[in-house]
Amino acid sequence: MGKEVDVASLEAGGARDYIDPPPAPLVDIDELGKWSLYRAVIAEFVATLLFLYITVATVIGYKHQTAAADAACGGVGILGIAWAFGGMIFILVYCTAGVSGGHINPAVTFGLFLARKVSLVRAVLYMAAQCLGAICGVALVKGFQSSFYHRYGGGANELSAGYSTGTGLAAEIIGTFVLVYTVFSATDPKRNARDSHVPVLAPLPIGFAVFMVHLATIPITGTGINPARSLGAAVIFNNSKAWSDQWIFWVGPFIGAAIAALYHQIVLRASARGHGSFRSNA
Amino acid sequence: MGKEVDVASLEAGGARDYIDPPPAPLVDIDELGKWSLYRAVIAEFVATLLFLYITVATVIGYKHQTAAADAACGGVGILGIAWAFGGMIFILVYCTAGVSGGHINPAVTFGLFLARKVSLVRAVLYMAAQCLGAICGVALVKGFQSSFYHRYGGGANELSAGYSTGTGLAAEIIGTFVLVYTVFSATDPKRNARDSHVPVLAPLPIGFAVFMVHLATIPITGTGINPARSLGAAVIFNNSKAWSDQWIFWVGPFIGAAIAALYHQIVLRASARGHGSFRSNA
Amino acid sequence: MGKEVDVASLEAGGARDYIDPPPAPLVDIDELGKWSLYRAVIAEFVATLLFLYITVATVIGYKHQTAAADAACGGVGILGIAWAFGGMIFILVYCTAGVSGGHINPAVTFGLFLARKVSLVRAVLYMAAQCLGAICGVALVKGFQSSFYHRYGGGANELSAGYSTGTGLAAEIIGTFVLVYTVFSATDPKRNARDSHVPVLAPLPIGFAVFMVHLATIPITGTGINPARSLGAAVIFNNSKAWSDQWIFWVGPFIGAAIAALYHQIVLRASARGHGSFRSNA
Amino acid sequence: MGKEVDVASLEAGGARDYIDPPPAPLVDIDELGKWSLYRAVIAEFVATLLFLYITVATVIGYKHQTAAADAACGGVGILGIAWAFGGMIFILVYCTAGVSGGHINPAVTFGLFLARKVSLVRAVLYMAAQCLGAICGVALVKGFQSSFYHRYGGGANELSAGYSTGTGLAAEIIGTFVLVYTVFSATDPKRNARDSHVPVLAPLPIGFAVFMVHLATIPITGTGINPARSLGAAVIFNNSKAWSDQWIFWVGPFIGAAIAALYHQIVLRASARGHGSFRSNA
Repeated sequence: MGKEVDVASLEAGGARDYIDPPPAPLVDIDELGKWSLYRAVIAEFVATLLFLYITVATVIGYKHQTAAADAACGGVGILGIAWAFGGMIFILVYCTAGVSGGHINPAVTFGLFLARKVSLVRAVLYMAAQCLGAICGVALVKGFQSSFYHRYGGGANELSAGYSTGTGLAAEIIGTFVLVYTVFSATDPKRNARDSHVPVLAPLPIGFAVFMVHLATIPITGTGINPARSLGAAVIFNNSKAWSDQWIFWVGPFIGAAIAALYHQIVLRASARGHGSFRSNA
Repeated sequence: MGKEVDVASLEAGGARDYIDPPPAPLVDIDELGKWSLYRAVIAEFVATLLFLYITVATVIGYKHQTAAADAACGGVGILGIAWAFGGMIFILVYCTAGVSGGHINPAVTFGLFLARKVSLVRAVLYMAAQCLGAICGVALVKGFQSSFYHRYGGGANELSAGYSTGTGLAAEIIGTFVLVYTVFSATDPKRNARDSHVPVLAPLPIGFAVFMVHLATIPITGTGINPARSLGAAVIFNNSKAWSDQWIFWVGPFIGAAIAALYHQIVLRASARGHGSFRSNA
Repeated sequence: MGKEVDVASLEAGGARDYIDPPPAPLVDIDELGKWSLYRAVIAEFVATLLFLYITVATVIGYKHQTAAADAACGGVGILGIAWAFGGMIFILVYCTAGVSGGHINPAVTFGLFLARKVSLVRAVLYMAAQCLGAICGVALVKGFQSSFYHRYGGGANELSAGYSTGTGLAAEIIGTFVLVYTVFSATDPKRNARDSHVPVLAPLPIGFAVFMVHLATIPITGTGINPARSLGAAVIFNNSKAWSDQWIFWVGPFIGAAIAALYHQIVLRASARGHGSFRSNA
Repeated sequence: MGKEVDVASLEAGGARDYIDPPPAPLVDIDELGKWSLYRAVIAEFVATLLFLYITVATVIGYKHQTAAADAACGGVGILGIAWAFGGMIFILVYCTAGVSGGHINPAVTFGLFLARKVSLVRAVLYMAAQCLGAICGVALVKGFQSSFYHRYGGGANELSAGYSTGTGLAAEIIGTFVLVYTVFSATDPKRNARDSHVPVLAPLPIGFAVFMVHLATIPITGTGINPARSLGAAVIFNNSKAWSDQWIFWVGPFIGAAIAALYHQIVLRASARGHGSFRSNA
């Protein structure tokens, strides 16, 4: 706070205290021969499975309790559901950051791919692992609580009654923008060099971003902002409304992630691209 | 805890382990020529827009759910609303701290200006960007949910029935004091040098300060402590009560921020101004 | 986790990677001449005032909302009240740690005095400032909401119906033990040297300790674990039940703090007192 | 995020920036002669006692309030109960990490024993201390609130009506997997060397893991994932259903911890075992 002034002049003078890694190649043949890639793909699969298992179980359990004991207000409420989504992202990003980078979300992978932080090969493998993991996670919940699962909507993302398609799409775009903007802020090598608190706290604000977006948009779309999460629930619930709205939960998050990548790379990181100052540099 | 004793004697001896940056000039012509200033203004605009979008959507969604299904206790409750405000400040301060200093609030900018941490030019540009961002954020919510938006009060700050104007003003003053005092504590260069935890945690206690003040004063004023937030909701909701109470949400926060700046600079930082000890220094 | 083995053998070998500060003197005449002492006392006064203002306002506001709109479940609930107490301690410890050590509680001051971390003079001045601050904080709430203040119990600590005096006293003892044990763990110079996460997170677990104890014991005593908080509410509410139970909220916390100081200094820090190992040291 | 690429190539090149500690011996006679072992056992006993005392008191208090005032929604709710379990683990891991490693759970001790991070002797002593501490903690709650204690179920873990034994067992296995996987991620020496945020945040994601699992599985089994917690409640509540389901809360967590240890040691840490790359190392 307030210390950006001298930092800016330091940049204007041309000195930099950080190193931008080179952009990831589109296809990196070498990478395909490394165990670390497959380990990362396994970690993304397991993390997305656990994410959907815990969160959809919370959603189903909450509706079950509310219906059974509505006078006692016994459920965890929408606040509890929002905590489940945000809190799981916090711990899973924390656990997998060192192995796979902790994406757990095709929209995040897409944003980082656009910014050339991951190769195309890695991005495709991650997305496949995330979708498969999400399907398995929701399948576990259905296996455990089949009678409640169908009665309480299966955790599927659908546009709520009274909202237009455009509103739902916009809600997904802005929600994913908030998430992917936070991810870029947390993993910016320029900031990491300067602000020691950035890598320390990184998984926590990413989790909170998910928590916040759920508080705001559960009434509109149930909150997707993660195409794997929406696909997994739709595959297992297999309801026509969930399928006909499915495109919203892919197009919206991918557009939101792309805008966040553009905003971060073009506007906020502009100085790294040669026009950091309107003055001529000393 | 308990380690302030030796620190104090160290100060009394004249040695200092930190550097006070020079006060920001009132008008810094050089600053106007730098891209980093305009980038910071854009970041403040976007952050305040996202802040109002998420929080007002949570307020509207909550009232909608409560009215539709009051027996089921389905809404996020006042606790959820307080989390939305505090949590968004946490992630937005985290994301923008390295670009603009992460103010997102004209009262914070005013307090830091009084303490000569930002120039007058920067302060004015920030406040304009924050107000414009807040208006756009609330407009988005209205665009998405126009029918619910007006029915559920538009997220505007108004003095609740049964409270006097003086009470409302005092609640805003003390609430903003809590917030700006936390901001000063988190960004004190003297503390940063000594306590390594200060910069690490900085965005988290700032977010929690906002969360706490909302818990306490939502029943009184709906909690402003951020003139841009109150202005944005009033402009879009455009209700006479919201406008006639609007001055409370500017005068209160600015007074609170000024008291916090005085308290921090005069009382807590006094040692840095030459009378750090009643004894003559060695 | 799991790394204590080699640390223990390192200690057994006699090498130490930390310095125990010398015990604070009972009376330190020098200290009385320093501005830093008075600044610390002012900081304790202001922090305790803000603590009581925010928390008691939350308690009153919650009961007011519950009574007015019980069907809508509109209040913040006991969970929200517990967050208010814990969250305020988090931000106030964060803000005042560098100035006064961030006690904000006579029981914490008493525990640190017993462990010879603060002098007697400082301890007495802190406790006086805390009690005065608490009274002023509750007075502010009463001034703001006088009609609701009396109707909703004034935030005073009283033994709930159905619990014996012994149960209330034991609940206060164990609750304060949890808090002061966390404070000692967070400020142990031995741990600070070894575990870099200790000073970083310190205010957060201390705040969480307060949050947890409130969740567990609000139904029993309303949760004191802070004699200044109980005294402030009793002075302003001035109810005979609050006064006749007041001794519980002084005797309990002081016993709990003393046990925590003994447990930490005798059992956990034993190695620093010469019998760190049953073997003869190499 | 996204930085795993170069790390992987660094590993493939053979250079390592961390040291794997040698596996702990099964029986370490030397250890038995050290005060640090017994201090650690005492710390595990006290921590587990406090854990059960606070959490079971929250459960009982919540049911009491709900029954007495169900219209007013006065209890802390399932969300508050989940916070109590997760928050206590956060502060107790924080407080005891430097003394005992902060297990507070026989399943965690078992997982770390399988990974050869603690000796057999230490593991057995820890588990005994944890079980004894849990029994004492629940006994305290019963002593304080005997009339409510039996009426509100004693905090015992039982399979809920409508769920099969297999579902309950699977819920315990996956829940404990989430917890122990987080513990391994937080204490991995390889990650500690590379990601400075790992030791800093360690107790927080571990506490959040407990919080998340409670949100998801309280409706199924009441959530065990800690055999000491389930045993302590069963011994004091002494109900036939709690005893006949008890095996689920030992077999499930131990299987879950074993899978987490295997997953972490075989899959994620594979590179440390000589096949870190499919390529021949340079």
